[in-house]
Amino acid sequence: MTSTALGVSTVPAVVTVSAAAADRAAPEDRTPPVTPGSPPAARVLHRCRELAAPALAEAIGTLHPWVAEMARYAFGRCEVGGAPADHGQGKGVRQALAVLGAEAVRGPAEAGVPAAVAVELVHVFSLLHDDIMDGDALRRGRPAVWKAYGTGPAVLAGDALFALAVETMALAPRSGSSVRQLTSALGDLVRGQADDLLFADRPWTGPDAVRVAEYEVMAERKTGALLGCALALGARLAGAPDPAVTALDRAGRHLGVAFQIADDVLGIWGDPQVTGKPVHGDLRQGKKTLPVLAALGGAGYGELAELLAAPHSLDGAGVRRATALVERAGGRAAAVREARRHLAAAEALLAGLPLAPGPAAELRTVLSALADRAI
Amino acid sequence: MTSTALGVSTVPAVVTVSAAAADRAAPEDRTPPVTPGSPPAARVLHRCRELAAPALAEAIGTLHPWVAEMARYAFGRCEVGGAPADHGQGKGVRQALAVLGAEAVRGPAEAGVPAAVAVELVHVFSLLHDDIMDGDALRRGRPAVWKAYGTGPAVLAGDALFALAVETMALAPRSGSSVRQLTSALGDLVRGQADDLLFADRPWTGPDAVRVAEYEVMAERKTGALLGCALALGARLAGAPDPAVTALDRAGRHLGVAFQIADDVLGIWGDPQVTGKPVHGDLRQGKKTLPVLAALGGAGYGELAELLAAPHSLDGAGVRRATALVERAGGRAAAVREARRHLAAAEALLAGLPLAPGPAAELRTVLSALADRAI
Repeated sequence: MTSTALGVSTVPAVVTVSAAAADRAAPEDRTPPVTPGSPPAARVLHRCRELAAPALAEAIGTLHPWVAEMARYAFGRCEVGGAPADHGQGKGVRQALAVLGAEAVRGPAEAGVPAAVAVELVHVFSLLHDDIMDGDALRRGRPAVWKAYGTGPAVLAGDALFALAVETMALAPRSGSSVRQLTSALGDLVRGQADDLLFADRPWTGPDAVRVAEYEVMAERKTGALLGCALALGARLAGAPDPAVTALDRAGRHLGVAFQIADDVLGIWGDPQVTGKPVHGDLRQGKKTLPVLAALGGAGYGELAELLAAPHSLDGAGVRRATALVERAGGRAAAVREARRHLAAAEALLAGLPLAPGPAAELRTVLSALADRAI
Repeated sequence: MTSTALGVSTVPAVVTVSAAAADRAAPEDRTPPVTPGSPPAARVLHRCRELAAPALAEAIGTLHPWVAEMARYAFGRCEVGGAPADHGQGKGVRQALAVLGAEAVRGPAEAGVPAAVAVELVHVFSLLHDDIMDGDALRRGRPAVWKAYGTGPAVLAGDALFALAVETMALAPRSGSSVRQLTSALGDLVRGQADDLLFADRPWTGPDAVRVAEYEVMAERKTGALLGCALALGARLAGAPDPAVTALDRAGRHLGVAFQIADDVLGIWGDPQVTGKPVHGDLRQGKKTLPVLAALGGAGYGELAELLAAPHSLDGAGVRRATALVERAGGRAAAVREARRHLAAAEALLAGLPLAPGPAAELRTVLSALADRAI
């Protein structure tokens, strides 16, 4: 948003368009400019980001200067060497859930800020380390931290963010139960990443094939645990009783599964112009995604299994053929069905709580924007 | 120790000899067999290790099975693939300090066990990640975890141990203050590792050279913080008042600096048969160690600085010449003086506390065994 000296916003039409497009993209991929014409989800995310930004910057400022630079680089706030920049820092979904969690249980937004800082730090820690594990050289269109600074320094920066996240919660009110909540999510995060790494080595078919139920456990751990933790921690810091905290944690976990499946669908059928990812990238890399796993679990998977057995030989025609086979075998429909089921479960859990209407509505807006993109 | 059915220990003389030798080695390098003839420090370490072992094994058992295998490999308890083994798991200095911290403030040894588990997990986490950062392919004579399992899995296993350590403290009594104590040490650990990595790129002489005072800050963070945390956490869990906890933390930090300097001295003048490290390895690698930094800060360092400026060209004669120059310039004497000063500071802090005499004596035995090896 650009403002004139008179405080009147001047909004070029093209910004509104790109904000709308960005809202359909994965939340990690770009920061949408926020304008009066932006969709509500982007406005909610922007408000929460702005609220947590000073505390997040202050926390990062306590790190070793070199490590702080790597953290700022990861948040899109500087170049290698430390020169200030603004490359977009991600939508900040997790910090928004923490703030909304506090508000939804009728606490002040500020109560959720330590949780927002902690979960955002954990998220960036996990991106830094996951990019090393997955060999992903690019993150949000720039060299990943391990590419820009080296593997060792990226490991160290991730460790520092991890420690800072725990310290942030340890210094917040109700630190005993909050730290337990955070470490439980951290444990699940690591378990989910371990599952995901091991899936790569398992066959597509036969008794050792990855089953849809296993995939969903992985997605709940890898993606859902931190989303649930964000909501739950925000509510906990605002003084919510345990049953509400538990229900919010479960809602966030369902949301995470829905979000991960939506991401899988976009990875196969999404518009690369919108997703920012190469077309059919997941299929080319032989990644175990839910639409493909569901398709293989159905009838007539012979040709698809053959194509996938040698992913490196999948040329353009092979990928298109595999995509068509996944769709024909019902993989896409099954994925959409599962994502909708988990989204509905999240919404049912929210509906069962006596939440403040305004924040609850904002929360539903964010949930839909995250998971509805592809379903 | 081997026991007969009658409970009489049978101790082959050779075991006693190797235990005595091992006691002079770096604490990470080997597990000393313990016999009635063993030096007291080895017996104390053994007792504390045995006390914490079940809880440590139980904690590791809660990890993802694949991650648990990597953890057991790192502890020397299995081969790659999971087959049981016993390669020696390190002396367990940190867990011993936690148990002794509890006993020294007149608590039961068992009170210190959660702290023992947490600090040992943190120690192994830091070894896993540091070996990646430093490119060290060997650890305790076996391939490091990143060599045996891959860099990505080793990053993940470290993360899992880190999370498990925090969770262990979060579930223990007095979790609020204990977690703060642990995360504060974790922050310092990361800062010390960052300092150490950056030292490698700095010159030996001139205004940007690493000063002895900077080295000691690095050593306190990288090595001292966790030793201090071990003592402090053990005492805290046993109900010690804050001033005693703080004094024990400071004592452990001084011990860490003394220990690190002793390690540096052994790295240059130690017997490779005892240290298990290549002779003059630190000099060949151009590592910034205290004896060399102190020597360069003294008079007549011209030839030494020239030799060090091109460490890769240091052949056997060059290394011997550099070693002689470091000694002649007073580097060895300065290192021994500094290590003794820090050890004395640690002992003075202990002497100022109303500690239980028996555990305090055991604590001093362990301190001396750690830092006296080279001074």
